Amino acid sequence: MADKITARNEDYSQWYIDLVRSAKLADYSDVRGCMVIRPNGYAIWEKMQAALDRMFKETGHVNAYFPLFIPESFIAKEAEHIEGFAPECAVVTHGGGEELAEKLYVRPTSETIIWSSYKKWIQSYRDLPILINQWANVVRWEMRTRLFLRTTEFLWQEGHTAHATPEESQEEVMRMINVYRTFAEEYMAMPVIMGRKTDSEKFAGAEETYCIEAMMQDGKALQAGTSHNLGQNFAKAFDCQFQTKDSRLDYVWATSWGVSTRLIGALIMAHSDDRGLVLPPKLASRQVVIIPILRGDKAAVLEQADAMAASLKAAGIPAFVDGSEQNSPGWKFAEYELQGIPVRIEVGPRDIEKGICIAARRDTLEKSELQLGETLPRAVQEILDAMQKDMYQKALLFREENTVEASSYEEFKAAVEKGFVIAHWDGTAETEEKIKEETKATIRVLPEEDGYIERYRMNDPGTCIYSGNPAAQKVVFAKAY
Amino acid sequence: MADKITARNEDYSQWYIDLVRSAKLADYSDVRGCMVIRPNGYAIWEKMQAALDRMFKETGHVNAYFPLFIPESFIAKEAEHIEGFAPECAVVTHGGGEELAEKLYVRPTSETIIWSSYKKWIQSYRDLPILINQWANVVRWEMRTRLFLRTTEFLWQEGHTAHATPEESQEEVMRMINVYRTFAEEYMAMPVIMGRKTDSEKFAGAEETYCIEAMMQDGKALQAGTSHNLGQNFAKAFDCQFQTKDSRLDYVWATSWGVSTRLIGALIMAHSDDRGLVLPPKLASRQVVIIPILRGDKAAVLEQADAMAASLKAAGIPAFVDGSEQNSPGWKFAEYELQGIPVRIEVGPRDIEKGICIAARRDTLEKSELQLGETLPRAVQEILDAMQKDMYQKALLFREENTVEASSYEEFKAAVEKGFVIAHWDGTAETEEKIKEETKATIRVLPEEDGYIERYRMNDPGTCIYSGNPAAQKVVFAKAY
Repeated sequence: MADKITARNEDYSQWYIDLVRSAKLADYSDVRGCMVIRPNGYAIWEKMQAALDRMFKETGHVNAYFPLFIPESFIAKEAEHIEGFAPECAVVTHGGGEELAEKLYVRPTSETIIWSSYKKWIQSYRDLPILINQWANVVRWEMRTRLFLRTTEFLWQEGHTAHATPEESQEEVMRMINVYRTFAEEYMAMPVIMGRKTDSEKFAGAEETYCIEAMMQDGKALQAGTSHNLGQNFAKAFDCQFQTKDSRLDYVWATSWGVSTRLIGALIMAHSDDRGLVLPPKLASRQVVIIPILRGDKAAVLEQADAMAASLKAAGIPAFVDGSEQNSPGWKFAEYELQGIPVRIEVGPRDIEKGICIAARRDTLEKSELQLGETLPRAVQEILDAMQKDMYQKALLFREENTVEASSYEEFKAAVEKGFVIAHWDGTAETEEKIKEETKATIRVLPEEDGYIERYRMNDPGTCIYSGNPAAQKVVFAKAY
Repeated sequence: MADKITARNEDYSQWYIDLVRSAKLADYSDVRGCMVIRPNGYAIWEKMQAALDRMFKETGHVNAYFPLFIPESFIAKEAEHIEGFAPECAVVTHGGGEELAEKLYVRPTSETIIWSSYKKWIQSYRDLPILINQWANVVRWEMRTRLFLRTTEFLWQEGHTAHATPEESQEEVMRMINVYRTFAEEYMAMPVIMGRKTDSEKFAGAEETYCIEAMMQDGKALQAGTSHNLGQNFAKAFDCQFQTKDSRLDYVWATSWGVSTRLIGALIMAHSDDRGLVLPPKLASRQVVIIPILRGDKAAVLEQADAMAASLKAAGIPAFVDGSEQNSPGWKFAEYELQGIPVRIEVGPRDIEKGICIAARRDTLEKSELQLGETLPRAVQEILDAMQKDMYQKALLFREENTVEASSYEEFKAAVEKGFVIAHWDGTAETEEKIKEETKATIRVLPEEDGYIERYRMNDPGTCIYSGNPAAQKVVFAKAY
């Protein structure tokens, strides 16, 4: 059973670690900074992969696989890229018992190795667009790690596309950041702010980086997905030109976009509570646990539980029965709350007599009486649907309650300790850097969503919170994971 | 379009390379021995993964993920294991800009890193069995590489299970080699011989290795999957003991089993022809291409083609239309034969008048007239089903025709140049080694299938083909990939 989980309001960081380990989602390995994703955690990743992969294919993408190793000379081809990534790479110097003539970097991201292939595949506009995604592991040497959120090795997907015009590549960048937004909102039940990064926060080698930012329960921000407009930077680095429709030569336009196992950390931090994991039903591989109360005619109770599970499964609701006798119902309640099974159903001999069972929702812990029989699957589905929707609304309300518009730097400094702060910024990297030094808060996003922009009047001009200089717009500041 | 593919009977190796590259299945990368799996090739891997993953889950397994890197000291814990794998590893010596205190091996297989976790997870028989599978990339430094069949990096799955008794672990070993056999036969349409490896061919660290061996079209053998009984070797190496039901302490019993992207190479070599890829329908992500013959009322023909595709898709048959006008129907026929689309349907204005279309099967190139209308999906499904079955039967017949029982070493030497040879073996490693030196043929498998054993009377005693000493049984020899 569960080890004790520290309460969130006591020590939020410790709560997170306790939860991840007690619910058997992940474990540190004996390799520095690398995690073991345990079956309970990996099952969430599989659900995420299935949903995202379907969305990628519906938007015309196909999967492929490129090498894990990148020759040092490739990484070096794009100047900003090597500056950003080389210091955090793992380097292979020996293979097959011999020292290598050229060092190989374990991929921290695959732009360079992929563009060395695209160069061979693209001659004409007829070869475009290329819309490829890759599911892979990547390695970035991290000094301070945290399970799921920041580990030396992690799993992710990285889309890499090639286009004939800058309009098309920008359209792709926006299409994919919106796919991520939809996924975050509809599957993870996690509200996000979609927008641009400032120059100092963008991807090493990108012209422009778009992101989705979510608020965790401690008020900090978590970047949950990014989509980069790479312009012609990588095509130029790899001398990848193509013949245009009107027979000119031009460099190819590129995008890349990705999300990672970090999303599992975001999911936990956005929704879970002191009892353990709270999973939105759409990402739960097991949605319902049925716990028979084994009194009286035990065989009859078990039979009823099995019949209920069968009818739920037949309706497409993944349900299972825990009829073991070595653990008490109370132990089971705690265990499945820890594991985040969205709905728990209890059924005992007296319930059966009355033709009912008791369903408990994991998010609110609310109980309701359901009729046994053919209406059961529909009633359970209604609970699951309501839970999916309510979890989103609750997180949205939390974000709104913890978003402050600051009109003085004093107000700013106090508010940024607790949540998101919306404030005027003069648009300079100097101001951004100073604020970061003094408060540890960064500009998370320049929102691109009409609703958000209107609500907080992001485009109203004003005075910079820090420098007092004129500011064309407001931006979202926060401390971040 | 296709570059020219060398004919099989002209140069089988070159045929294979030409096919893999023309059909855009894979490409060599700029990294020594590493391949790029292109979308057409990766789509086959996705179909294989989906089928295998379902079979693994149906037999009670769950997925997880363990680190890519293995500390040198871990690999060294199992004596045979380090001897077998260390010479072919890629080694990371630097990370985050600094030299590492302990070298990290890029996993060639994950027994050691996984058992260092299992040791923490297993205390009692109640924690057993552990039935985990991992989908991952692995690296083995290969001197001579061949796309899919032997590359420095490849993709695979590796199952790693832990059991309380040797009976249970042996049962698991056999369960999984039989899952692989079923997959090879029913999905890949590829007959295999299931059985044991000799001691010199078994996995480094295993007590016993079971395998499935398939015959390629040049008569060579290809090992398509292995399942290892690891005994208590890894539990002892990692000091992983558990409390048994009767309160003793014992070491845990282990298995591991895997298949890799090598299966894509096997699939190609087992079925394809001089025109290109021949894919069994169950592994084709696109099963039907519809080619409208655009004469007369082009819009009406296109409309008919789209309606046919829609009705096939509604019936669960993945179909698509190629209505482009820049390429001729003849060009398209050749292109989709190269790509291995199982069924091609042609439909033109005169066909529509007659209420028919022409379907061509990729394996036999046989054409048949099908009625348009609501019976079409069923008629196409019948062709797909027949093709799946016939491809297996054809490959089985080929294997039988190219299997020879040798009664003298002269006969053996001639026959082993062309196919599988069944011969008596005295059971010694010396004889096995001598035969390998002199003929390059190895003992592929000691069959464990009743049907195969009976057919070739494998258990009849006799005289060793090489030494002339008494031999308890016959074994299967072949040259191998």
